Amino acid sequence: MTEPFRLTASQAQAKFRDCSLTVETYAKSLLSRISARDSTTHAWAYLNPDLVLARARELDQIAPEERGPLHGVAIGVKDVIYTKDMPTEHNSPIYEDDAPKLDAASIITLRANGALIFGKTTTTEFAATSVGPSYKGPRTSNPHDPSRTCGGSSSGSGCAVGDFQVPIGLGTQTVGSTIRPGSYNGIYAMKPTWNSISREGQKLYSLIFDTLGLYSRSVDDLKLLLDAFQLVDDEPEEVFNVKGAKFALLTLPTPEWPEAGPGTAAALKKGAELLRAHGAQVDEITLDDEFRPMYKYHLQVLSGDGRVAFLPEYYVAKDKIHHLLVNHVENRDKHTRKDQLKAFDGLAAMRPKADELADRYAAILGPSVLDVAPKGYDNTGSAAFCGPWTAMHMPVVNVPGFKGENNMPIGLSLVASRYRDQHLLRVAREVGRIFETEGGWQRQV
Amino acid sequence: MTEPFRLTASQAQAKFRDCSLTVETYAKSLLSRISARDSTTHAWAYLNPDLVLARARELDQIAPEERGPLHGVAIGVKDVIYTKDMPTEHNSPIYEDDAPKLDAASIITLRANGALIFGKTTTTEFAATSVGPSYKGPRTSNPHDPSRTCGGSSSGSGCAVGDFQVPIGLGTQTVGSTIRPGSYNGIYAMKPTWNSISREGQKLYSLIFDTLGLYSRSVDDLKLLLDAFQLVDDEPEEVFNVKGAKFALLTLPTPEWPEAGPGTAAALKKGAELLRAHGAQVDEITLDDEFRPMYKYHLQVLSGDGRVAFLPEYYVAKDKIHHLLVNHVENRDKHTRKDQLKAFDGLAAMRPKADELADRYAAILGPSVLDVAPKGYDNTGSAAFCGPWTAMHMPVVNVPGFKGENNMPIGLSLVASRYRDQHLLRVAREVGRIFETEGGWQRQV
Repeated sequence: MTEPFRLTASQAQAKFRDCSLTVETYAKSLLSRISARDSTTHAWAYLNPDLVLARARELDQIAPEERGPLHGVAIGVKDVIYTKDMPTEHNSPIYEDDAPKLDAASIITLRANGALIFGKTTTTEFAATSVGPSYKGPRTSNPHDPSRTCGGSSSGSGCAVGDFQVPIGLGTQTVGSTIRPGSYNGIYAMKPTWNSISREGQKLYSLIFDTLGLYSRSVDDLKLLLDAFQLVDDEPEEVFNVKGAKFALLTLPTPEWPEAGPGTAAALKKGAELLRAHGAQVDEITLDDEFRPMYKYHLQVLSGDGRVAFLPEYYVAKDKIHHLLVNHVENRDKHTRKDQLKAFDGLAAMRPKADELADRYAAILGPSVLDVAPKGYDNTGSAAFCGPWTAMHMPVVNVPGFKGENNMPIGLSLVASRYRDQHLLRVAREVGRIFETEGGWQRQV
Repeated sequence: MTEPFRLTASQAQAKFRDCSLTVETYAKSLLSRISARDSTTHAWAYLNPDLVLARARELDQIAPEERGPLHGVAIGVKDVIYTKDMPTEHNSPIYEDDAPKLDAASIITLRANGALIFGKTTTTEFAATSVGPSYKGPRTSNPHDPSRTCGGSSSGSGCAVGDFQVPIGLGTQTVGSTIRPGSYNGIYAMKPTWNSISREGQKLYSLIFDTLGLYSRSVDDLKLLLDAFQLVDDEPEEVFNVKGAKFALLTLPTPEWPEAGPGTAAALKKGAELLRAHGAQVDEITLDDEFRPMYKYHLQVLSGDGRVAFLPEYYVAKDKIHHLLVNHVENRDKHTRKDQLKAFDGLAAMRPKADELADRYAAILGPSVLDVAPKGYDNTGSAAFCGPWTAMHMPVVNVPGFKGENNMPIGLSLVASRYRDQHLLRVAREVGRIFETEGGWQRQV
């Protein structure tokens, strides 16, 4: 029998339903996995086994007919999202041991649906830097090679899901903080349409970009979450077939974006080949010139937003926040309000055009990352390829299945227009089936 | 000598500086005013005199050279904004006695600058309905006529500042929740540029509209706040003279907006006359047709945002939230995602054009409200004239000085383009001097 910790959330739920597994036994299995692996991976910022087991026993007491759709689903929560029974430290000494009794909107919804909020996972400082090490010391490593980063800023959630320590993780994304760890850790990662899930109660960086991110090892698990958060497309649910579908392949090599490394380049090539081999049409496209300022605009808006978001911490303890955030608050780059508005309005004008482009295809296939997870922990890698879809508010799913150097995982991004999240998930399910089977990288089970 | 509770914050600070008043004595005076008036006005959702006095004594202990720019400034906080030492109930039974130990971003900044966070002021449910009475019973009344509403949703802050119970109040605005009570209570009210002050830690309704609002009885006090929040325009601070300045008069009578009542119509007429009499040019303008869908778009986006924002409370206790919010979550009006995006993108496209219009003038002068505060408490009045500037993200100041029926106060809105908040305040200072002196309504002192 498969050890319970290796199950996806949907698989565990099937066993809860047929009474072959209790939530308590399942939670104990996850805790033993964490116990065995934590000294290597360091994915958790806070974990209280007693609390987890007490809650698991409570869930087991609920009569079958009263159980929620997420009954017993174990979820690791990035430590920038408030949980009323655990501290939230944002990886900042300013918030050491800080534990306001407050659940973020996402956590209220997940708990109300029966989820088991497991613990808090590591993050870079305020989810706003790409610098790995925590002020407290431990460095979250990549489950597939402990000498490498697991990415960031949603470091611990990406690692914990990739390492079978928990089936589902919550991250956040302001540029590439969910999708990048998704690729590095060989898992599914979804950044839904901006503002389709409430971001209330997660640390603010940018109102216009911050998005809750979702991790899992299966599309079924992502589907459970989208349904709990009541994401509904305009179009009815229809069966999606790769055969006969039309995809865009967007490699993004322009002066604005860096060139993909060999691992990602090979994955893109193979991904397109596999789709074609399964009967899809794949058109290679480029972004029109009007989209060119996107990257510059994104950074410009971020800078203005960081100036506002980190002013409170700046007042409280300027010396305890990263110098990049101090630079934002002090506007060291001398950004004008006029430039900030030009960028804000410029991105807004691009969004309907990006939707229009995406709507010509079942999905856009593009790179998630430059290449496999880099060596070391000091830097969590580049978000360059994730930024465009964050700026455009479009839903993205990282689909794993490819490999780069050292047999490290590489994923590709599927992208749809805004509020086609359920459609995108149906596409990701079929594409994932192909990429995971034939892409060349297999998760060790 | 003026009783301390009648001082503006700036006046009180002058007395702290020359040692003719302590923060403790000042706080006691405010508390005695509240004690005398509270059974009529009901402006406070939470007030703990012991806590206030303890904090006041702490502030008095700070050496003069170490005092912050907001030293001793007493601030009433709308009860949708988190304060770590007081409950935050959002006027919802779901959050009865809820007191997570968390300060909103705005509160952290204010405290770090030396402010005295005084207590929590009443709000309509989640600042998201225009229905007056609280689930707990008391109805906040208008300080100038207790049989009338003080407006909403920032009911208590508007009332408390208008009634000399506190010199400064924090509100929020998603449509007209700050500016409307400003007019009804005869005080200055400012809705700064969207996202120029962090909205983190205030209950979410709409990411794209929610804005922290500021109340005071003087422009000097608003200036103290804008400086603490580090609002800086691109342009340098320059002396503003009404003489020679050019204003736009925008009365908004279109099929999309209701007609102003006699009180507001007279105030607009008199306001324009006074500016002209003081040497300004006042051009009567109308909004171009491209702005016509603004009101419809605003409501459309709100509906989609409410669907997301109140999903957690819907799961927790659907029967304990207002049916309008239930309607949002259940999408009873059958709004499509496509329409929601059309509205979201449509408003975004209008913003640079609205800035362009405003930049032709020192400020746009327009109505704040339909007329004086309505009778009764069941309805907090119409936000119709406030919505456009909220949707456009533009800064607005309600300037008091006019009167309508029954000698009730009426204010007018001054509006500038985004991130010209300090400019707008300089205009409001000079215009306010004229309106308050010659407009016909005098605050009883």
